Amino acid sequence: MNAIDELAAVQGVAYMDGRYMPLAEASIPILDRGFLRSDITYDALHVWKGRIFRLADHIARFRASMAGLRMSLPHTDGELAEVLMECVRRTGYRDAFIMVMCSRGVQPPGTRDPRLCRNRLYAYVQPFLWIANEEQRRDGLRMVLAKTQRIPPESLDQRIKNFHWLDLTMSLFEAYDRDATVTVLPLADGTVTEGPGFNIFIVKDGALATPDRGMFEGITRRTVTEIAADLQLRCEVRPVRAEEVAEADEIFTSTTAGGITPVTWYEGRKLGDGRPGPITTRILDLYWKRHEDDALNTPVRYDD
Amino acid sequence: MNAIDELAAVQGVAYMDGRYMPLAEASIPILDRGFLRSDITYDALHVWKGRIFRLADHIARFRASMAGLRMSLPHTDGELAEVLMECVRRTGYRDAFIMVMCSRGVQPPGTRDPRLCRNRLYAYVQPFLWIANEEQRRDGLRMVLAKTQRIPPESLDQRIKNFHWLDLTMSLFEAYDRDATVTVLPLADGTVTEGPGFNIFIVKDGALATPDRGMFEGITRRTVTEIAADLQLRCEVRPVRAEEVAEADEIFTSTTAGGITPVTWYEGRKLGDGRPGPITTRILDLYWKRHEDDALNTPVRYDD
Repeated sequence: MNAIDELAAVQGVAYMDGRYMPLAEASIPILDRGFLRSDITYDALHVWKGRIFRLADHIARFRASMAGLRMSLPHTDGELAEVLMECVRRTGYRDAFIMVMCSRGVQPPGTRDPRLCRNRLYAYVQPFLWIANEEQRRDGLRMVLAKTQRIPPESLDQRIKNFHWLDLTMSLFEAYDRDATVTVLPLADGTVTEGPGFNIFIVKDGALATPDRGMFEGITRRTVTEIAADLQLRCEVRPVRAEEVAEADEIFTSTTAGGITPVTWYEGRKLGDGRPGPITTRILDLYWKRHEDDALNTPVRYDD
Repeated sequence: MNAIDELAAVQGVAYMDGRYMPLAEASIPILDRGFLRSDITYDALHVWKGRIFRLADHIARFRASMAGLRMSLPHTDGELAEVLMECVRRTGYRDAFIMVMCSRGVQPPGTRDPRLCRNRLYAYVQPFLWIANEEQRRDGLRMVLAKTQRIPPESLDQRIKNFHWLDLTMSLFEAYDRDATVTVLPLADGTVTEGPGFNIFIVKDGALATPDRGMFEGITRRTVTEIAADLQLRCEVRPVRAEEVAEADEIFTSTTAGGITPVTWYEGRKLGDGRPGPITTRILDLYWKRHEDDALNTPVRYDD
C-alpha cells in the first residue's frame, strides 16, 4: 500500500500557501521547518449545522500563538476567516473540522536562521471529527494518569498550540497497555495538565475545577467555564492535583473535536455508577445548545 | 513568492515511502502524523569524500529511536543502507548530508490510534551542511545560556532523535536578541544539555566534560570521546552545571552537520584569547582525520 492508497478515502479541501486543492493531495514540502523542526502553530475550529463556532475567538487565539512564536502572516483577520470559509464552502460540509496553521516556512539554502523564512498559511477542512468514538461517547472514556509528564511551560508555552505531541502520543501507549482509552499528563509538581487533544475538568461535591497551568487554553474549556457561570456552579481554574482527579465524583474532557466527553473509569475505579454523571451530562447538553446562539456562530455562505 | 520559487534552488534527491524524486519535489502528506503530531524520528548522517561516516552506528541508533517510539519498518539494516546509498548515488555528491526518517504514517479515517498506522520511511540527501558559516567556524561561535529549558527526559527521551525543536528554535531568538549565534539549554536542575542541533563539550585544566542527561547522544559526540581516549585526555560524561560552562577554558560543539565548532564567546566573556583553543583545534583536526579510517567509512558506489 502506498501513500495514494492510504489517502484515497480522505475527503476534504485544503488551502496550501495560496492554493486550494483536495485534502488528499495536500502536502507540505519536506524542507519546510513546519515539518522538519515542528516549527509551526495551529488552531482547530468546527462547523456545526452550517455555522462556524466562535470564529473570532479562534482567530484571535491563532494570532496570539503566531506572535508567541514570532511569526506573522500578511492576512487581516477578515482574510484569514475568508480562507477558512472558502475551504468549508468548497466542501459543502454542514458539520466539519477546520485546521488552520502558520508554519515558519522553508529556510533559504545555506542558513539556519528562522528569521529569514517567509511564514506560510496552511488550512484544511474535513468531515467533523470526534476524538472519541460513538461507544466511548455513550459509555465514557477510560482514563489513566500518565507516567510521561507533559512538556512543561519552562520548555514550551503550551498556550501556543503546537504539534509537539510525542509526550501525548507515547502516553496513549501507556493507556493501551493498561486497558484504558486516554490519559491525563502531570507536571513534575504533581498537578495535572491535559490529555491528548483535550482539556480536563473534575467535579467534586457539585463544583468544577480545571487546571490553570501547563496546558492549552481551549475554547471549549472556556465555553464550559461560561456554561458553569450561567448555571451558577462553582468552577475554579486553578492547580489540580492528581489526587483530586483520583477522588473526583465526575471527570470530563473538553475539545473542539467533539465537545464534552464523559470519563467513567479512572485508574481502575468506576466513577459513580459507571455512567456519565449528571453535571457532565448537563454541561454537554448546554454545550451543544450554545451552537444555536447567533452571537457565537458565523454562518457559512454555501453555494446551494 | 510561492512554494515553487523558494524551493527552486534546492538541490538533492529524496526517497519518499518507496519512490525516489528530486528533493525540491519531496513533500509529506498533510495528514501524516509525522507532520501533524511530529510523530516521527530521524537520524542524520554525512558523506565525506565519497564515503558515509559511521553508517552502521547511525543505522543502529535509528533503529533504537524507532523502537523507542514503538515504530518499525519492514526493511533490514542492509535495505535501509541501500536506500541511503541510492539517494547519494543519484546526487553524485562526494560531500553530502543525509537525512533518514521513520514517520508514524497516515491515520486511517475515523481513528486516532497510532498503532493502526503503517510506519513510513522517508530519506533525503543534499549538499553537505554546516551548522555554522565559514566565518563562525574560523572565529568561533558566540553562545549564551538559554532561559528556555530543554524539553526534559520526563516528557521526552531525548536519546530518541525528534523534531520537537520549539524550545531550541525559540532559544535562538534569545541568542539573536543578545548578540549571540547559538545557545545551550539547561534543565530545571541547572545542568546543561545541548544546543540547537549539537552537543556541547567544555575543557577545563586540560580535561573534557560533556553532559550525560537530557540530550541526544550524538555520533560526533561519541567520536570526540574516542579521540580524547586516544589522546589520553580525561573526558567525563557526567552532569555539567551551567556555572562550569561559564568558567570553562574552552567550549566546542559537536554535530554531524559540520563536526566540531569552537565557541569563543560565552555570556559576554571572551574565552582565552578569543581564538579557538588548542584542545578544540586538536580534536577538530583528529575528527576530520577519522574520515580517512576505512573501518569507519563506507564507500558510495557512484556511477562514474
